Amino acid sequence: MASKLKLIPLGGLGEIGKNITAVEYGRDIILVDCGMGFPENDMYGVDVVIPDFSYLKVNKSKIRGLVITHGHEDHIGGIPFLLREVEVPIYATELTAALIELKLEEHSQLTNTQIFVKKAGDKFRLGCFEVEMIHVNHSIADAVGLAIKTPIGTIVHTGDFKVDLTPLQGEMTNLARFSELGNNGVLALMMDSTNVEKPGYTPTERNVGKNFEHLFDGCDKRIIITTFASNVDRIQQIINVAHKYKRKVAFTGRSLENILKVCSEIGKMKIPEGTIVEMDKINSVPRNKLVIICTGSQGENMSALYRMAHSVHKQVSIDARDMVIISASAIPGNEITMGRVIDLLFQRGAKVVYDKEAGLHVSGHASREELRMILALTKPKYFIPVHGEYRMLCKHADLAREMGIKPNNIIIGENGSVIEITQRNIRKNGAVKAGDILVDASGTNEIGSDVLSDRKHLADEGVIFTSLVLSEEDGSLIAPPEITMCGFADPGDLEMVETNLRRIVYETLSYCDKKHIRNLATIKSKLKTNYSGYLYKTVRRSPMVVTTIHKL
Amino acid sequence: MASKLKLIPLGGLGEIGKNITAVEYGRDIILVDCGMGFPENDMYGVDVVIPDFSYLKVNKSKIRGLVITHGHEDHIGGIPFLLREVEVPIYATELTAALIELKLEEHSQLTNTQIFVKKAGDKFRLGCFEVEMIHVNHSIADAVGLAIKTPIGTIVHTGDFKVDLTPLQGEMTNLARFSELGNNGVLALMMDSTNVEKPGYTPTERNVGKNFEHLFDGCDKRIIITTFASNVDRIQQIINVAHKYKRKVAFTGRSLENILKVCSEIGKMKIPEGTIVEMDKINSVPRNKLVIICTGSQGENMSALYRMAHSVHKQVSIDARDMVIISASAIPGNEITMGRVIDLLFQRGAKVVYDKEAGLHVSGHASREELRMILALTKPKYFIPVHGEYRMLCKHADLAREMGIKPNNIIIGENGSVIEITQRNIRKNGAVKAGDILVDASGTNEIGSDVLSDRKHLADEGVIFTSLVLSEEDGSLIAPPEITMCGFADPGDLEMVETNLRRIVYETLSYCDKKHIRNLATIKSKLKTNYSGYLYKTVRRSPMVVTTIHKL
Repeated sequence: MASKLKLIPLGGLGEIGKNITAVEYGRDIILVDCGMGFPENDMYGVDVVIPDFSYLKVNKSKIRGLVITHGHEDHIGGIPFLLREVEVPIYATELTAALIELKLEEHSQLTNTQIFVKKAGDKFRLGCFEVEMIHVNHSIADAVGLAIKTPIGTIVHTGDFKVDLTPLQGEMTNLARFSELGNNGVLALMMDSTNVEKPGYTPTERNVGKNFEHLFDGCDKRIIITTFASNVDRIQQIINVAHKYKRKVAFTGRSLENILKVCSEIGKMKIPEGTIVEMDKINSVPRNKLVIICTGSQGENMSALYRMAHSVHKQVSIDARDMVIISASAIPGNEITMGRVIDLLFQRGAKVVYDKEAGLHVSGHASREELRMILALTKPKYFIPVHGEYRMLCKHADLAREMGIKPNNIIIGENGSVIEITQRNIRKNGAVKAGDILVDASGTNEIGSDVLSDRKHLADEGVIFTSLVLSEEDGSLIAPPEITMCGFADPGDLEMVETNLRRIVYETLSYCDKKHIRNLATIKSKLKTNYSGYLYKTVRRSPMVVTTIHKL
Repeated sequence: MASKLKLIPLGGLGEIGKNITAVEYGRDIILVDCGMGFPENDMYGVDVVIPDFSYLKVNKSKIRGLVITHGHEDHIGGIPFLLREVEVPIYATELTAALIELKLEEHSQLTNTQIFVKKAGDKFRLGCFEVEMIHVNHSIADAVGLAIKTPIGTIVHTGDFKVDLTPLQGEMTNLARFSELGNNGVLALMMDSTNVEKPGYTPTERNVGKNFEHLFDGCDKRIIITTFASNVDRIQQIINVAHKYKRKVAFTGRSLENILKVCSEIGKMKIPEGTIVEMDKINSVPRNKLVIICTGSQGENMSALYRMAHSVHKQVSIDARDMVIISASAIPGNEITMGRVIDLLFQRGAKVVYDKEAGLHVSGHASREELRMILALTKPKYFIPVHGEYRMLCKHADLAREMGIKPNNIIIGENGSVIEITQRNIRKNGAVKAGDILVDASGTNEIGSDVLSDRKHLADEGVIFTSLVLSEEDGSLIAPPEITMCGFADPGDLEMVETNLRRIVYETLSYCDKKHIRNLATIKSKLKTNYSGYLYKTVRRSPMVVTTIHKL
């Protein structure tokens, strides 16, 4: 029996984050991207969310390569974790490769990993697959889509993309190549769904530059601009405008410093001689001749802008002689933290420009008409929307139907879905283990659901510890009970509660004695029931109750 | 010396929530509104945020009345808590009063409270003040602004408002009265800043009705609509459209049922005979002849729509024969929870209409041009922007400056600011205690900052609890140490950690013995240091460490 082609998205479906897809045929698997996500609010103490690699661990002998579409964290952030489980060569364009190297260096994994630098237009064989990289526009330079020639036909994966007709650097998305592939026959298209809810076309990056000019023109303040560190084109535009208005440029924030280092190493940024000034020398430049580019466009805790807003930045103290430009839009979930930072900047007297109307940011993702364009050019037989919340995948499927793709040829998958493709049909055939693996800052501790549910209980209600010393002989209390409460109530209220809990300890032990209950687990459970009853009745609270008993 | 007029906003500045302002002259204070707010994400276990009433407790003998502008929670939610501290008569319009009564009934406070029902146009005296209610449009019926005649001049407080030229019920905002007041001289204007960042005019409520019609027309599905329960006009529009298309209407969700009860008691809603169907009888109505109006427009936990999405609603099971209309926009911070509910509805196959472009919601707050209009009509000498985040207050101040108000006559306050007004000038003169009081679901427990910081620590890192029994005589261990960990790590990792912690207990005690350390606090602190060192080194974690020692 002939092998079947399987597409297995292990992340990125039903979410915008931790993108990773396995493409499998016979004895060969290639991976497209390996990202990480950020924790939701109720994932206490979790710093990073990575994909479940179980399926890849089991099939590690089949994996021929990891192909990366671009250098954003939701496409490369999972790599160090994957490499702990599976040895795999990596294929990426120059900037992407440099960002991966930086990341692996931080994780001390660089020396063991093969990274092959490719460029748009390159084709290379991985097992039974031939992979071709296709230039696309995105909010980071050196992004590519992929054409993957498989034994039964060509799969096109757009990666994250938009169609920028006037890109700042390089060419626009290689529509000609997508069109050629379409004319030669595309079996399946996997396409970025992020902006499927946005009508029309995503504006060009160049618009932002024009609006920077309006703001710089005649401005006598120091200018501080925050944006996504990885948006090399945006940073280039800021540098260009600064140069035009004879301002020096300084950078602050670790991720920006990293990007700058990487870009200057590979020559991705054009910085006119003498433009850059070190942060510790900014005082030598007149305020109205300075631009500071900084991290913190999402209000991130302890980012450079956050520190400025809270007056704890080493070199920058904000006042009325500053104009702060927020060249980003808040990612859903970050509006409130970003709003707080803006409020603080206002309180320090700064002029803050952050309005949507000011056109200081454009998206890196294709809107509906661009998605239609790629569908029209590639004319795929099958369509699988990827990179989106579930509702976006559904809307993207609707769009594909409107564009004439047969309903049966469109698959809305979930993370782990095994999407089986033959030349005759496409279907979901079962699923492999997939989901969120929660990791803390150390990157070594996985945080399971039991730990999370304990943390949720602790966070909402606090905990009461009771320690008892009982006589081995007759079960009687031979030391005063020790009761400790954390995160439960304010000291004022504690005394009364503690007195009552102490009484409950005595009553419970006396009850157990009367009933000849000597089993420690039973005593603990009785105590918990009695505590809980009292606490709920008097203060409507249900803290975690933990009891230890020493027998002597 | 003549008394000074003081405006003291105790809430609503630097936030959109818990609005309350004290107006004080000589021996008289009146309060405008008394709202509550919702907790931020890091306020673990907090359900309600109320204003700090310290200043009012101290000055309770001066308080002549509480005047409420409208029935939204951020204007009435704090009343039950205020009434525990201060006895005060309440003045409100009919619907507002009914909603307050409902709330006080739930808190068993109704019998002790005087509520005077007033209507727009009414004037009444409270101490040295004369208060006049002025009809305004808002997203709840029966909203008013206030003109407060004080011994030194008239203060206008807009309350929350917009200018709807074609309101669904009643008149448009009483611009004529604002204009008359302006002609007679307004000393100070306090105005709603919520939408100061929105250019132009806020659209009329009637637009939403038209868009409902488009969706109902020819629809063969059951229609489920969620909106804010308090938006009586919106609900009226749904009923009107349902009636036109010969559909019955059912309601689900407690706050909606409450509103409906209140409105039908005071005749605020016009419901054609035979339109309503009880939820437990909806199966007797054909699906395409039914509209269900439900709570949950913000994705709130356990709201009616949330339960439908999670397939745990008693009477409603969602499938492809349903169209769900989200007639609301997500309040910042709620986008993610709302997105999850929409995703689940999609997964059940429902058609979901939620796009901003569909025009299924309009704001209840005035945009920039409407704010300008009120400034132009009232021509106030002094201006105090209220009801907004700090950045909005600043933008509102800019707007007032553009409209010709002198910069020195504009005050951006903070909660607690004492804004002193004479006929000659306005200034901030110190501050009174104000801020967030955090309350849990029971409504009786105040949650202080120590408790919150413990909860944050517990949530992020978990806790390790150690109980020791030491000999009184020589400090030696006379029972095995008991170590319990909660929310710290998964069971797989615990064993190794526990073994090592046990070793650290022995080492620490032996060290203390050698150094003749017998003080329990010192032993605990040594143990904590040693635990922390080990845990940080091996797993980069810093759980809370709690130790109790019994001496025998």
